[in-house]
Amino acid sequence: MATPSPGYSITYRVSTPASFTASTDLAAVVAEWGAALTALDVIESTRGGLVVDVSCDTRGVDHAEEIGGALAALEGVEMQKSSDRTFLLHLGGKLESVSKVTLKNRDDLSRAYTPGVARVCQAIAENPEDARRLTIKRNTVAVVTDGSAVLGLGNIGPEAAMPVMEGKAVLFKQFAGVDAWPVALDTQDTEEIIAVCKAIAPAYGGINLEDISAPRCFEIEARLREELDIPVFHDDQHGTAIVTLAALTNALKVVDKDMGEVRIVVSGAGAAGHAIVKLLLAAGAHDVVVCGRDGVLSPAGTHSDPHRAWLAEHTNPRGVSGTLKEAVVDADVFIGVSAPNLLDGNDVAAMADESIVFAMSNPDPEVDPVAAGRTAAVIATGRSDYPNQINNVLAFPGFFRGLLDAQCHDITDEMLRAAAEAIAGTLGDDELNPGYIIPSVFDPRVASNVAEAVAATAAAQTASRNGAAEALVGAEAHR
Amino acid sequence: MATPSPGYSITYRVSTPASFTASTDLAAVVAEWGAALTALDVIESTRGGLVVDVSCDTRGVDHAEEIGGALAALEGVEMQKSSDRTFLLHLGGKLESVSKVTLKNRDDLSRAYTPGVARVCQAIAENPEDARRLTIKRNTVAVVTDGSAVLGLGNIGPEAAMPVMEGKAVLFKQFAGVDAWPVALDTQDTEEIIAVCKAIAPAYGGINLEDISAPRCFEIEARLREELDIPVFHDDQHGTAIVTLAALTNALKVVDKDMGEVRIVVSGAGAAGHAIVKLLLAAGAHDVVVCGRDGVLSPAGTHSDPHRAWLAEHTNPRGVSGTLKEAVVDADVFIGVSAPNLLDGNDVAAMADESIVFAMSNPDPEVDPVAAGRTAAVIATGRSDYPNQINNVLAFPGFFRGLLDAQCHDITDEMLRAAAEAIAGTLGDDELNPGYIIPSVFDPRVASNVAEAVAATAAAQTASRNGAAEALVGAEAHR
Repeated sequence: MATPSPGYSITYRVSTPASFTASTDLAAVVAEWGAALTALDVIESTRGGLVVDVSCDTRGVDHAEEIGGALAALEGVEMQKSSDRTFLLHLGGKLESVSKVTLKNRDDLSRAYTPGVARVCQAIAENPEDARRLTIKRNTVAVVTDGSAVLGLGNIGPEAAMPVMEGKAVLFKQFAGVDAWPVALDTQDTEEIIAVCKAIAPAYGGINLEDISAPRCFEIEARLREELDIPVFHDDQHGTAIVTLAALTNALKVVDKDMGEVRIVVSGAGAAGHAIVKLLLAAGAHDVVVCGRDGVLSPAGTHSDPHRAWLAEHTNPRGVSGTLKEAVVDADVFIGVSAPNLLDGNDVAAMADESIVFAMSNPDPEVDPVAAGRTAAVIATGRSDYPNQINNVLAFPGFFRGLLDAQCHDITDEMLRAAAEAIAGTLGDDELNPGYIIPSVFDPRVASNVAEAVAATAAAQTASRNGAAEALVGAEAHR
Repeated sequence: MATPSPGYSITYRVSTPASFTASTDLAAVVAEWGAALTALDVIESTRGGLVVDVSCDTRGVDHAEEIGGALAALEGVEMQKSSDRTFLLHLGGKLESVSKVTLKNRDDLSRAYTPGVARVCQAIAENPEDARRLTIKRNTVAVVTDGSAVLGLGNIGPEAAMPVMEGKAVLFKQFAGVDAWPVALDTQDTEEIIAVCKAIAPAYGGINLEDISAPRCFEIEARLREELDIPVFHDDQHGTAIVTLAALTNALKVVDKDMGEVRIVVSGAGAAGHAIVKLLLAAGAHDVVVCGRDGVLSPAGTHSDPHRAWLAEHTNPRGVSGTLKEAVVDADVFIGVSAPNLLDGNDVAAMADESIVFAMSNPDPEVDPVAAGRTAAVIATGRSDYPNQINNVLAFPGFFRGLLDAQCHDITDEMLRAAAEAIAGTLGDDELNPGYIIPSVFDPRVASNVAEAVAATAAAQTASRNGAAEALVGAEAHR
């Protein structure tokens, strides 16, 4: 059962009779119904009674209604209104566009706008690269969605996706000083999404694709990487893969196993699973088995979808087949980016000794972490109410900070690996233990470590490309 | 000749010998070359000499170079560097995306992002109108350009247009608290621009089209007004028309003439001219003659372009023909949105007594304001260095403030007229005189007056539509 969360924090304003026990009666109802009381504020007190704001974290909408009903059912208590602190926080949106220059007088206006601005425009027209110096392109990322796969909510459309995109932009700024702006598209047509992203690109130094359903997200990302000269990142793929690799790197240290030797089972052949597998293989994993809805993908299988075909071809070296439950027997690592409750404690018990379980389906994991904990050595989830939360917030802000600082034109697998290493390396070996394999999202070292690693990798790759080009020129000259 | 402008403010860092007259020599050069000295700052002083920052407003790039050369030519003076204050102001762009919520701890994160945000998303999915309450759509406008007609610079492309769009967004925020975001499009295809605007619309409460060349701007605006449920404004048309009507309203008061009786000549049959004529006719003007590049448009003329055809059909009631110079003879009002130096003082002298001349071509007006001033009663330009600047900044911020406050779905001619009246009415009749027919862009009353007028007009129109609908329902019921 879910625990009460501040994401469902409700304030009930009730009037009560004047009685010595009025407040404690209210608190008792909250406790009895399993919510977490956060405040009791007396708003008004008269000879006849009290008006009290009862604030508590609940388990969800239904739970909040039950508690409201129970409070109103107390003798003499009347419900005046209930307000939802989450909705209050979102009122009017969470983002604003703010000027970095002051316009106090005519002189300011002449420089920031006409006639002075014309000269800045001309400079960029003559040298388009100057856009990265003289416009917001230098520090700005588009957070692009079509609203087709938002959180666990599915295809809720672009308007309803906006609160998530705004939240993402808030995180970009908070954790890495990146100016991000939501682009919620009223189309789910692959070609149209590609065309729009290309059209709006001049204002942005990078594009973060978000919550776009598979398989369209693959095509969109691949085409944009090919056709745009700014980096394109799909957070559901690359962000998840980076943080998963970081967590696995440290988890393997805790159990003293080696990436190249462990048996890994990945549940989920969608966007996230695909990216995780690609990055694990690049990081030296050999024995990876992927399970889709119909069980293990094998080279023998026929896959019309090219991404499944790629997975089938590059994984499962031992040629196993069967169900997910069969696949996890003797596995060292389980990574789930799929659906709730696919495994139980017995399945985890059938894994190898000192097993690692990453059950990242949200909000309900692939296996109950408590049941898994009976035999597994390390457990991680996507949730904040268990230890070891695998959260993309650890990756994307710092990753784009690095891309923008290095003025990157594209993203390489080496940058993804470098980011994962930076996150993992934020924790010293002496800090690691089964309950702490990944830093907190509020650890201030993470974003700057990731940014530095990405920028350094970019610089090294540019230098090596230039070196290769020079070598080539040298070779040509020798002929 | 242009006067020195803070838009071309340069700081020269020079080293000079230690001499009693060193600073005054520098100042003398600046004065001799006709620039306006704004500061002399000694940066370093040693026994051997001084390092001085000489700041001055110049007339333009060439002028600034001449002054630099003249300073360096002084005996013993060496130029260390020159820096351009306008470029410094634009470094890194002029806009940032800022969070309106604080994220200090896990609880904040749970409300602003997952899991709390999911509930807000679901509320919008169930009732899409809630997007105007729970997302930035409530207060956010897209400033859309394709970079095809930027200021007087022409087709410089989207990257180079960004400094203007960012400046526009700064003005939106500064004058009316509107969050605006630049959308600079890497396409000049009409259909593609329409498709992109429709696709990005979910995040915005309105669209401000900017610096898109005619005739594409007409089609784009018309189609978007038809196909989107948020208001679409083309500043080069509607903004200019509003401020022109406001200025003309007050100018006519100054000379005591009546809108319905004056002869008006409009020079320029492009986007601005078209919108101005439409609004003047709606405001009661009768005798309007429009001149394009080939002289007066007349009903007899054949016009392939439907917008010219519309103008030809709805103007020129006396059926005059000929050149612009011929058309202005005996005219009461000249309105120029065309090209520099089309008229001279003699042409203005041939106008009716107490003539009104709005020469708005930028930066060089249709007629030299000094020459026009010998006979005209009221003169206005688009420039800040003459009295009566006709500047769109007076209109667009307040206009969108009103649209957003009233949650408008479209823009009506009545709103444009109401905005013009609000700007004109900001000045009391006792404040009006030939040198002051239009308020300053820094007049804090303007934006709120315009916003109130637009919102009130919207409310009245909604009420009247609902009334009409009810009347219709009533009539139906009677049958």
